Amino acid sequence: MLSLYHFGPVANSLTPLLCLLEKGLAFENRLLNSRNWEHHDPAFRKISPEGMVPVLVHDGRVVRESTVINEYLEDVFTDNPLRPADMWERAEMRVWTKYVDEYFCPALTVLGAHGATPFASKIDKAEMAQRLANMPNAEVRAKWEKVSSTGFSEAELEDARRRLGNVAYKLEGQLAHGQDWLLGEQYTLADIKWYSMVPGLPRMMPAICNPEATPAIMAWLERMVGREAVRQLEGFHP
Amino acid sequence: MLSLYHFGPVANSLTPLLCLLEKGLAFENRLLNSRNWEHHDPAFRKISPEGMVPVLVHDGRVVRESTVINEYLEDVFTDNPLRPADMWERAEMRVWTKYVDEYFCPALTVLGAHGATPFASKIDKAEMAQRLANMPNAEVRAKWEKVSSTGFSEAELEDARRRLGNVAYKLEGQLAHGQDWLLGEQYTLADIKWYSMVPGLPRMMPAICNPEATPAIMAWLERMVGREAVRQLEGFHP
Repeated sequence: MLSLYHFGPVANSLTPLLCLLEKGLAFENRLLNSRNWEHHDPAFRKISPEGMVPVLVHDGRVVRESTVINEYLEDVFTDNPLRPADMWERAEMRVWTKYVDEYFCPALTVLGAHGATPFASKIDKAEMAQRLANMPNAEVRAKWEKVSSTGFSEAELEDARRRLGNVAYKLEGQLAHGQDWLLGEQYTLADIKWYSMVPGLPRMMPAICNPEATPAIMAWLERMVGREAVRQLEGFHP
Repeated sequence: MLSLYHFGPVANSLTPLLCLLEKGLAFENRLLNSRNWEHHDPAFRKISPEGMVPVLVHDGRVVRESTVINEYLEDVFTDNPLRPADMWERAEMRVWTKYVDEYFCPALTVLGAHGATPFASKIDKAEMAQRLANMPNAEVRAKWEKVSSTGFSEAELEDARRRLGNVAYKLEGQLAHGQDWLLGEQYTLADIKWYSMVPGLPRMMPAICNPEATPAIMAWLERMVGREAVRQLEGFHP
């Protein structure tokens, strides 16, 4: 029995959702409403003490962290493999996946959280103070404290945009070799991980990521959207 | 044929070095002198284009990123396993390893780079400008630009110390369950990864990490130092 707790087909929640669909695994769909802060409620924190989403529950055991969940699904369910059989290629897949977690995601999070400022600024101050006090993870709390008060500085936003420029340049260079997927002819967990973050780039960074500047990225996005499992994601929106 | 390019038994270089020793694998020892910026030389950049260290070369193929290198060694050399056989425990191992890369290491890097300020400030300005121009990785360059000019701000140092406090609290809590190693009775890649960073904590954060405040961490460090492979690390200093 598999249950996925998630926020819908975006960002880190998309990562295990798409992996489950690609592998054709049946799972219980546990959609949480982030705008109601359901992930900080005591009921969910029995499953995920720090209120972190997504989490997978498999036969009563909780698997955390989207990247780790996908490796776990590969380790346990060996049909429809999404990791290369060649171990060097598998290592390369992990380098590309890791880069999203360590470099791409933190930069995108700054712009994403900045975009949440209108939402956060509308929340009653007393309610926000209570929400903050209820946030179990120190870094998540620090982010929301910033978003609901001073916001990110122009220097922080500029640095995040600079890093996202590096991200787009790197991905375009990789895909410009002419292959269909990030690591070549095999679609892997690296494509899934990047697809959790890349769709926001053309909208957030239109001068950097567009059909003229990054044609290989745009063509890869089209190939992704053409996949049956990606189309199925539409059924998992809040 | 295995060759490891590294800076000696510290930080990210320690991670694959200790793994190779624990597994009893023979390898060519390729020590680079970071103070001579050997890792930015054209010769090394034929192996590691961005000048990143450590890298493992296995039969002519380059494996990058210390965490990925260790998973690769486990995938290819199955004797003396350092990953749990149970896949849920293996996922937990990855969560703990990932936390070092994403949270512990960036915070420690701030204090480490701050500690390099006396070294960097002694470098002739014209030479430093040339060194910076020769740095292929944008984030490494940004770090050295900061260290050789303004240095880190007190707010940045304070935030790094705050995060390292969280790290020590988290590790102490995990080890205080009474087991020998991070995940229980089995010594794993998680112990190796944490040992690449933890030895600096009692020195850098003596008020937070010491025998009274964090007895479980100090006892784990002693168990680590008692391992044959950890003693062998001494032979790999510059």
